[in-house]
Amino acid sequence: MSETTVPAVDQRDDPLRFGVGARVTVAVMTDRYVDVIMDALRRADATGLVVQTGDVSTYLGGAEPELLRYLTELSAAIAESGEHAAITVHLSRGCPGEVICELPGGAGPRAVEVAPGRVTGRYAAAEWALYPLADDVRAGVEPDHMRDIYAAIELAKDNGTFRASEHFVTRLEGDLGTVLATVFAGWTMVGRGVQHVTSHLTLSVNSPSHDHVAG
Amino acid sequence: MSETTVPAVDQRDDPLRFGVGARVTVAVMTDRYVDVIMDALRRADATGLVVQTGDVSTYLGGAEPELLRYLTELSAAIAESGEHAAITVHLSRGCPGEVICELPGGAGPRAVEVAPGRVTGRYAAAEWALYPLADDVRAGVEPDHMRDIYAAIELAKDNGTFRASEHFVTRLEGDLGTVLATVFAGWTMVGRGVQHVTSHLTLSVNSPSHDHVAG
Repeated sequence: MSETTVPAVDQRDDPLRFGVGARVTVAVMTDRYVDVIMDALRRADATGLVVQTGDVSTYLGGAEPELLRYLTELSAAIAESGEHAAITVHLSRGCPGEVICELPGGAGPRAVEVAPGRVTGRYAAAEWALYPLADDVRAGVEPDHMRDIYAAIELAKDNGTFRASEHFVTRLEGDLGTVLATVFAGWTMVGRGVQHVTSHLTLSVNSPSHDHVAG
Repeated sequence: MSETTVPAVDQRDDPLRFGVGARVTVAVMTDRYVDVIMDALRRADATGLVVQTGDVSTYLGGAEPELLRYLTELSAAIAESGEHAAITVHLSRGCPGEVICELPGGAGPRAVEVAPGRVTGRYAAAEWALYPLADDVRAGVEPDHMRDIYAAIELAKDNGTFRASEHFVTRLEGDLGTVLATVFAGWTMVGRGVQHVTSHLTLSVNSPSHDHVAG
């Protein structure tokens, strides 16, 4: 069966076919970085996910709750090492291809429940960008990007992770797990109206400048 | 004079008013990370740029050639340390606000010459995402995103940095300066037709898995 004959609903229901996934880069600022990263990778539960490790990032493919679980466990394990680290997360859904979206004619948006996060007891500071892309115009959906982004910001304000609007990003702070869950919530909420949504997050853990809040 | 009365042409001609800038996160995987980063920051020429250092990233505001010069010098200095590092670059133009674009009515796209890069003699592997955003619809511009992105990919193929299309990103490899110049060229070329264009790049230098190409 060729791609073009797959009904849109089947494309939306299959996370891998819909291109739901993440790329994550973990950079640990210690001579022991290989040990810290390998230990964290061992401790993160990859059940239900496709995992492909590369030299620049690790690709993760699968449904939103499993991605959030894996990224929370991976990041928490890095934070628990006590070492200063930058964790860069790139989320994408709705465009399984690379340069060109491979859902001919548009599959339309994929609606999922907001995945619950897990409080980790570890502090993170983060910078977040959220991009509703316009590829679903062909599917006849006319999203209200600003409404959706406002809703995501409101969520961050309600759960206490919102700190500030800065150049090009929203600054989040708080429990590492809550920060990740907030980003996932914004990504999936915007994804209810827009097929192709990406989000980029840079997390800082165990920074010397976080000593006042380290837990 | 309030923002709404500034003619669009003045908004486009002023890099800071147009929101031309970058955020960069440098994560060096050594116990000496503070020294390596501070030394690289000292060696990068920030003339003509606004620089604001934060705990998650450093914000840079200014025109495209100065941004490229600074990021090339900063990254080359990190690479020359010999330490393994991940450098995350977030470029943005056309949206000086944070969550909401602050160019009411749309300023339209800003056309600039492609900034020349500098060959550094240092190898980098990178993953690149390029996002033409749709905020300029109000300005009556109907960009052809795919045409612009194809042109950026062609450029990478022509200069030899293109390696592969992967999940959500294009993989680039080669001289660190040429990789950065390619990303800047794609960003500014797409920006000739689209007001708000962002790009995210993760660079890996001195990876143990790059030993076959280290120069």
